[in-house]
Amino acid sequence: MSDYRAPVKDALFTIRQVGMLDELSKTERFAHVDDETATSVVEEYGRFMQEVFAPTNATGDRQGLQWTAEGVTVPPDLVRAYGKFVEAGWQGLNAEEAYGGAGFPEVVFVIGAEFMIAANGALSMCPGLTTGAIECLQEWGSEEQKEVYLRKLVTGEWSGTMNLTEPHAGSDVGLATTKALPQDDGTYLVTGTKIYISFGEHDMAENIIHLVLARTPDAPAGTKGISLFIVPKFLVNDDGTLGDRNDVRCVSIEHKMGIHASPTCVLSYGDDGGAVGYLVGEEGQGMRAMFTMMNSARIAVGVQGLGLSDVAYQKAWQYAQDRRQGREIGAESKEPAPIIVHPDVRRMLLYMRSHIEAMRALVVHNAAALDLSRALDGDDAERWREVAELLTPVTKAWCTDVGCEVTSTAIQVYGGMGYVEESGVAQHFRDARIAPIYEGTNGIQAMDLVGRKLPMRMGGVVNDHLAEMRALDARLEAAGADFASIRSNLTAAVDALARATEWIMTNGLADPKQALAGATPYLSMFGNVTGGWLLARLALGAHEELAAGSDDVEFLRSKIVSARFYAEPYLPRAAGLLGAVQAGDRDLYAVDVDGLASL
Amino acid sequence: MSDYRAPVKDALFTIRQVGMLDELSKTERFAHVDDETATSVVEEYGRFMQEVFAPTNATGDRQGLQWTAEGVTVPPDLVRAYGKFVEAGWQGLNAEEAYGGAGFPEVVFVIGAEFMIAANGALSMCPGLTTGAIECLQEWGSEEQKEVYLRKLVTGEWSGTMNLTEPHAGSDVGLATTKALPQDDGTYLVTGTKIYISFGEHDMAENIIHLVLARTPDAPAGTKGISLFIVPKFLVNDDGTLGDRNDVRCVSIEHKMGIHASPTCVLSYGDDGGAVGYLVGEEGQGMRAMFTMMNSARIAVGVQGLGLSDVAYQKAWQYAQDRRQGREIGAESKEPAPIIVHPDVRRMLLYMRSHIEAMRALVVHNAAALDLSRALDGDDAERWREVAELLTPVTKAWCTDVGCEVTSTAIQVYGGMGYVEESGVAQHFRDARIAPIYEGTNGIQAMDLVGRKLPMRMGGVVNDHLAEMRALDARLEAAGADFASIRSNLTAAVDALARATEWIMTNGLADPKQALAGATPYLSMFGNVTGGWLLARLALGAHEELAAGSDDVEFLRSKIVSARFYAEPYLPRAAGLLGAVQAGDRDLYAVDVDGLASL
Repeated sequence: MSDYRAPVKDALFTIRQVGMLDELSKTERFAHVDDETATSVVEEYGRFMQEVFAPTNATGDRQGLQWTAEGVTVPPDLVRAYGKFVEAGWQGLNAEEAYGGAGFPEVVFVIGAEFMIAANGALSMCPGLTTGAIECLQEWGSEEQKEVYLRKLVTGEWSGTMNLTEPHAGSDVGLATTKALPQDDGTYLVTGTKIYISFGEHDMAENIIHLVLARTPDAPAGTKGISLFIVPKFLVNDDGTLGDRNDVRCVSIEHKMGIHASPTCVLSYGDDGGAVGYLVGEEGQGMRAMFTMMNSARIAVGVQGLGLSDVAYQKAWQYAQDRRQGREIGAESKEPAPIIVHPDVRRMLLYMRSHIEAMRALVVHNAAALDLSRALDGDDAERWREVAELLTPVTKAWCTDVGCEVTSTAIQVYGGMGYVEESGVAQHFRDARIAPIYEGTNGIQAMDLVGRKLPMRMGGVVNDHLAEMRALDARLEAAGADFASIRSNLTAAVDALARATEWIMTNGLADPKQALAGATPYLSMFGNVTGGWLLARLALGAHEELAAGSDDVEFLRSKIVSARFYAEPYLPRAAGLLGAVQAGDRDLYAVDVDGLASL
Repeated sequence: MSDYRAPVKDALFTIRQVGMLDELSKTERFAHVDDETATSVVEEYGRFMQEVFAPTNATGDRQGLQWTAEGVTVPPDLVRAYGKFVEAGWQGLNAEEAYGGAGFPEVVFVIGAEFMIAANGALSMCPGLTTGAIECLQEWGSEEQKEVYLRKLVTGEWSGTMNLTEPHAGSDVGLATTKALPQDDGTYLVTGTKIYISFGEHDMAENIIHLVLARTPDAPAGTKGISLFIVPKFLVNDDGTLGDRNDVRCVSIEHKMGIHASPTCVLSYGDDGGAVGYLVGEEGQGMRAMFTMMNSARIAVGVQGLGLSDVAYQKAWQYAQDRRQGREIGAESKEPAPIIVHPDVRRMLLYMRSHIEAMRALVVHNAAALDLSRALDGDDAERWREVAELLTPVTKAWCTDVGCEVTSTAIQVYGGMGYVEESGVAQHFRDARIAPIYEGTNGIQAMDLVGRKLPMRMGGVVNDHLAEMRALDARLEAAGADFASIRSNLTAAVDALARATEWIMTNGLADPKQALAGATPYLSMFGNVTGGWLLARLALGAHEELAAGSDDVEFLRSKIVSARFYAEPYLPRAAGLLGAVQAGDRDLYAVDVDGLASL
């Protein structure tokens, strides 16, 4: 049994402060989503995840998966939980209403995703991948493809996959060699091997719709020659019933450090002549189609850092009350005290808590920007698209890096018991470690931030972001003494980020290697500062609710404490990263490869 | 098969620069250890570990252990490797010659330990625990106990354990309730349950000598009432042969995230009336006996961070050459390049390498201080004892924290393949995560540094350390332009550490909670700065060897690059930690326990 409790109140507070739901509900696209409906969806989703998904998490980790040549078997508990998820209709939460979805904005969806991931990180990947497929087909599928495949994906009866990686083509997708040979009937025969395909084969859904990147004959080399195909596990008859098994097989699954209940498949296409595939969009547009869903997919991976952090935090918070060791400093009692009274344990908990709140605020803010970019028009849409584009690599990389640290800290709170699998925190730590790798490694995110995002509008987008963070200063000043240290630390941190940004843009222009050498610490700094700014906004929001007479005093005061506990100890680290950003590439290449060996 | 290669040349260079072997060999105790013997021992030990231990590492992780009521079975490959270790006589490397040891100093021993841990971290724990038992009996055992037990421990024919922890007594050892009832024949009957006993039961050695903390009747509460007992698995007859099985049983082993080949045992003493135990030293002196070996045991755990980092680095360095993805910036070739050419991958490798060198230098310097404290007399001994005492918690905690980060970075270099267990790097990451927990959690180390070590000689010891670091400035200045950035960054970092130290001592005196709230970031800063200082010393040593005409130019130049690559990007982080050190405890207790829940 799991004790996970979906943090509904914290989530709704975050949406209220930085989720821009008011603006969203004024748009035509999200006119049906007001505060009340969003609240009830968040509450219902939370309840479902804590009651249905969460109890299957440890089971899934321990039992793992069974592979045979016939297919992959998921533990029965998880199959049942997934069945209830489909039954409840949750898969369609953010899908278009025209194809059976509920049309909710990302800002609500990411909170649902947080709860789902916290409840069962491995299982959450199946709906997660399906969401990606839905988004892709909504944008690029033909009307017929939408009717045949999209509707079934939206209900969750069928699940979706993304097939990009091949053994020799990981970060460098352009090296993919899977072939797609056009047939007279307009279909293609797909042959090749794809690896690292999450839920590429399983027994939870009736059919699996693989979205496969492949190369048509005579296609140019690199990413320009790549097209996207639908390759269903079972072919679909004209009447919508399932027909023959397609020529795609799961030939093995990986033995991984974590996410044991998520089958990571090697898929072999075309062992019997070719799997039937259907072109999505036009030939050569495969990468473009993938890019469509990249923002939301990357935000969703960032949410993994958040969700796993929170469930690990909940366990650590409880354990720190139950475990008694050592006496409380200054207390008269000689009895061992709950370790939560000790300063260093308290520090670990507040570190976790403040970073969880910062991650959630970043995820929600980024999702809201994406929503507004879709729901508004013209310049307004463009402005929010820029924000979403700028923040997405930060959300993905910073939240997943912090997720590894926070789940590790939960182990540390447990001490020896944390290293023992029965405690359950070890699983969250193991599960969290994949997130900095997939959906573009965090190094790739840093390159994206520095190489593609900073140059947007010749630096105008990042400068707007810096200016917006600075603009909080007047409100922080007005909020008084409680906010003084938040204000001074945020100012110093934004200054450091501005200096780092200037260094990167100036030196990167002359020599890209200079900028790329500092890209990862730059992204760290960017996440650290933006997180501190968002926490300050949450704290100001709490301050204003208090001033307006809210009687939820303790809760709202705690948000001010979180922001301050982040600002004083953690915001100064931004300036500490300047050295790493500005180190440049000289020493990186000063020793040749052999000289770098351990000798 | 493993590709681990013991970094003999790097290790010998580190010993040469900061190991103080010259001073050691001038003492009576270590007169037999000159440069040549130390070199040949390091070389031999390295060869043994890479050939005999390393090939068993992945096997041990995969096969794990078998528990039955009769005992614990270790994979046969590991049993054989351990047998060869005993045969070669390596267990006695640093044991006293009077009882069959080779009497080598810690400075050589820790390098051997690094190689052993890198070769097989789980298996290394058995000799590691035996070393602790040897040290304890050397200091506290009676002549008879030394003859009967110590000699067999020194050969490795019997292994040793440390029995401190009980279910309700972890960091707080004083809560232990295991009982020892004196018998008429001078022995004791021991009853109770001990947990987390590494190699508490196994089939690699003929006998296991448990050193057990227990409480005699009417002993005072807390640590003062604790005594230390020898409880052998098999009783020893007067003629030295093995007699009856003692009344101690392994009732279960833990299912852990890592170190799968190291049995973590629950030991039950006295299910059939009481295990026969022999008092070591006097009643009530148990904790004092444990403290004897604490410095070397804690340094040895720090070495785990170092060893696992280096073996993970070796894998990452190789993989980064083999794996081809993406084009090299500015290169004409359109072919995918080995990822080692990419700035962010190179950054990860240099981060790992420079931190490994810093950890090794810290370990060696700390070990040398411990050796000199034992080999010298009077004030000289006292001076080095102070250095060893000051640095030990830093070595333990900083090296194990960095070990987790470096092994994690190795996974990141591998990308998706790193998350797959077959790569082998995932194991190092899992194995490394225990080290910040056992032998005193890193939080306990930070409390030790702040609460016990800073007050030594009313701050005189830490001030001497700061002064010694500052004293390097003249040499750095004289070394010219190559050292300019090392010099400026080291100065700034030592200044930051001095400020932090002053803050801790001033505020901690008034209110210990203030100091303890910042203890962990303070220790981080201390490790970071001391590591940078030691790398600067290695670099100066290299510079001087070059000036003296050494033709090992590339190797020596690479040490200067390491120091600079650490100084420019990483030393500035010290100042970035000041905020966390000085945050104090106000916000830690501003929200009550319920208010800290995820809501």
